[in-house]
Amino acid sequence: MATRRVGGQTIFFEDLPKLVSAHTIVGKNEGQGPYSEYFDEILEDDLLGQPTAEKAERQILQQAVEQALSKYGLVPQDIQYYVSGDLLNQVISAVFSARNLAIPFLGIFSACGTFAQSLGLGSILLHGGFASKVLVATSSHYQTAERQYRYPIELNIQHRPTNQHTVTGAGACVLSADGEGPKITHVTFGRIVDMGLKDPNDMGSAMAPAAFDTLEKHLKDIECSPDHYDLILTGDLGRQGFKMLKIIAEKKGLALGTNLQDGGVLIYGEDPKYGAGASGAACSAVMTLGYGLSLLREGKIRRLLLVGTGALLNQLTVQQGDSIPTIAHAVAIEA
Amino acid sequence: MATRRVGGQTIFFEDLPKLVSAHTIVGKNEGQGPYSEYFDEILEDDLLGQPTAEKAERQILQQAVEQALSKYGLVPQDIQYYVSGDLLNQVISAVFSARNLAIPFLGIFSACGTFAQSLGLGSILLHGGFASKVLVATSSHYQTAERQYRYPIELNIQHRPTNQHTVTGAGACVLSADGEGPKITHVTFGRIVDMGLKDPNDMGSAMAPAAFDTLEKHLKDIECSPDHYDLILTGDLGRQGFKMLKIIAEKKGLALGTNLQDGGVLIYGEDPKYGAGASGAACSAVMTLGYGLSLLREGKIRRLLLVGTGALLNQLTVQQGDSIPTIAHAVAIEA
Repeated sequence: MATRRVGGQTIFFEDLPKLVSAHTIVGKNEGQGPYSEYFDEILEDDLLGQPTAEKAERQILQQAVEQALSKYGLVPQDIQYYVSGDLLNQVISAVFSARNLAIPFLGIFSACGTFAQSLGLGSILLHGGFASKVLVATSSHYQTAERQYRYPIELNIQHRPTNQHTVTGAGACVLSADGEGPKITHVTFGRIVDMGLKDPNDMGSAMAPAAFDTLEKHLKDIECSPDHYDLILTGDLGRQGFKMLKIIAEKKGLALGTNLQDGGVLIYGEDPKYGAGASGAACSAVMTLGYGLSLLREGKIRRLLLVGTGALLNQLTVQQGDSIPTIAHAVAIEA
Repeated sequence: MATRRVGGQTIFFEDLPKLVSAHTIVGKNEGQGPYSEYFDEILEDDLLGQPTAEKAERQILQQAVEQALSKYGLVPQDIQYYVSGDLLNQVISAVFSARNLAIPFLGIFSACGTFAQSLGLGSILLHGGFASKVLVATSSHYQTAERQYRYPIELNIQHRPTNQHTVTGAGACVLSADGEGPKITHVTFGRIVDMGLKDPNDMGSAMAPAAFDTLEKHLKDIECSPDHYDLILTGDLGRQGFKMLKIIAEKKGLALGTNLQDGGVLIYGEDPKYGAGASGAACSAVMTLGYGLSLLREGKIRRLLLVGTGALLNQLTVQQGDSIPTIAHAVAIEA
């Protein structure tokens, strides 16, 4: 077994785990954006002919999982743990996909930070010797998220400029103790950060301090400056949150360069139709497994840090006057 | 580091982790039941003077966490990970309690099986050498659960005999690599089991096959018969689910004796006011950490197996005609 050490909040891995297989699926809108070439599948119909968006979301997740497995010649029984979650209550999309797999399931909830948390826990299961192969996946769907968190899309409620658009899609990957692929080198699980913001129409600003908190701790723990990474990819801060993150970093004296990008800013390009950009559990998953992994595999970058951001927005408690707690988990991946 | 091995679906631990500290809090009704002597605190007011039940639930969880830490002379900074979840959407009670702790937080969702899953993941973090101390906690509250899953209690909707009553309470414990206390010896994470049942008023029957699936796998993996354990405690099957579990076991030829008990059957006694008995994420937590741990510490039992059951009931998908997926995770604890 490989050695490990823990420094501060960060876990250091050595020779494993490896990301041996991945598959990304996105919806029609995401497939029309500037990163479309990086995704494995682009849906022609976001509903996949299903009677409800909830059934469509779970089918997208299921397809991503099946493809991630079959690309590497695996069947579910080759996998010891399926680590998954999504934005829906009771992580129900993940649960239904787990039902089909019929292998041990660990349900995770960290809102849009679910993918990073799952990747981190999957790495721990492998590196600790508890598994040889772990499957990690997550999904989100514009229509299911709007229905649950805001209004059914049929009502056509106008969005604010700081609103973000939930990515329709799913990302799945297989972590393995052996085989070839980019390595997961570090995981920094984040703390809950809550600066008292209460506006559910601006989750980017709420999440920015959490992204900074985890990023700062991670860099301190590994004793590196931000340029250690060729790409630092925050999950889904969107334009508003990304601007806030840069302001916080500047005030705190952390020099973040052009290697810092945000999945939520990138995926739809500049189209104002999508407000401040993208959000959703699938956003960081497809941008990491699609865009990020492609750059790593093609040798365009050598080190990637995913800082998966999540706003733990509960509709009822926001109505009761509570603020929106947020979190960010960092996962470092090396070619 | 201690050795480990994995057999089938089960992880075998050796000398650690240890359950060095625990604290349980229950509401007024639970405090009037036959197991009241085993709980550390019984609330006089289930709302704790808070304006909403949601605020009360998070305060109960927070109190349980603080007590579990302070009993062992710990402060949050001594803990590397807080592993927690609850029944509310976005596991918001756990999130708010994590905000106060300000340490890395891993959000878990496995419905009423959340405590067992968290205990299992906490054990992995310790046994894999990723942490020296992990805090595990969960909560539920009758009023918050009714409001979210059924109707606000003010409507006074009549319950069916197969309905279960959500436990108001919280359980928290500290797992440690050193120190004295009962040891966690095995963890068997379960698969999603779904026999097609769709009645949200009878979650016990839906969960029974999942409880059997995990229990059967666990016993096979450790190569023991059920009487290896002095107490096998299922989480919250209630009277209906417990009956179903016994029927399934008999049909499958697994001899379950009087050492099999269910937290949901026990906690309120025979009082018909509570329908088929108790449910809720706190049910298995307080019965394990209150009742179970007391028996272990007093030497009345030597080996306890918690089979934490969870019904992943999503209101919307049930309305859309889907069945209720369920899961069970087993954790073995030895004096």
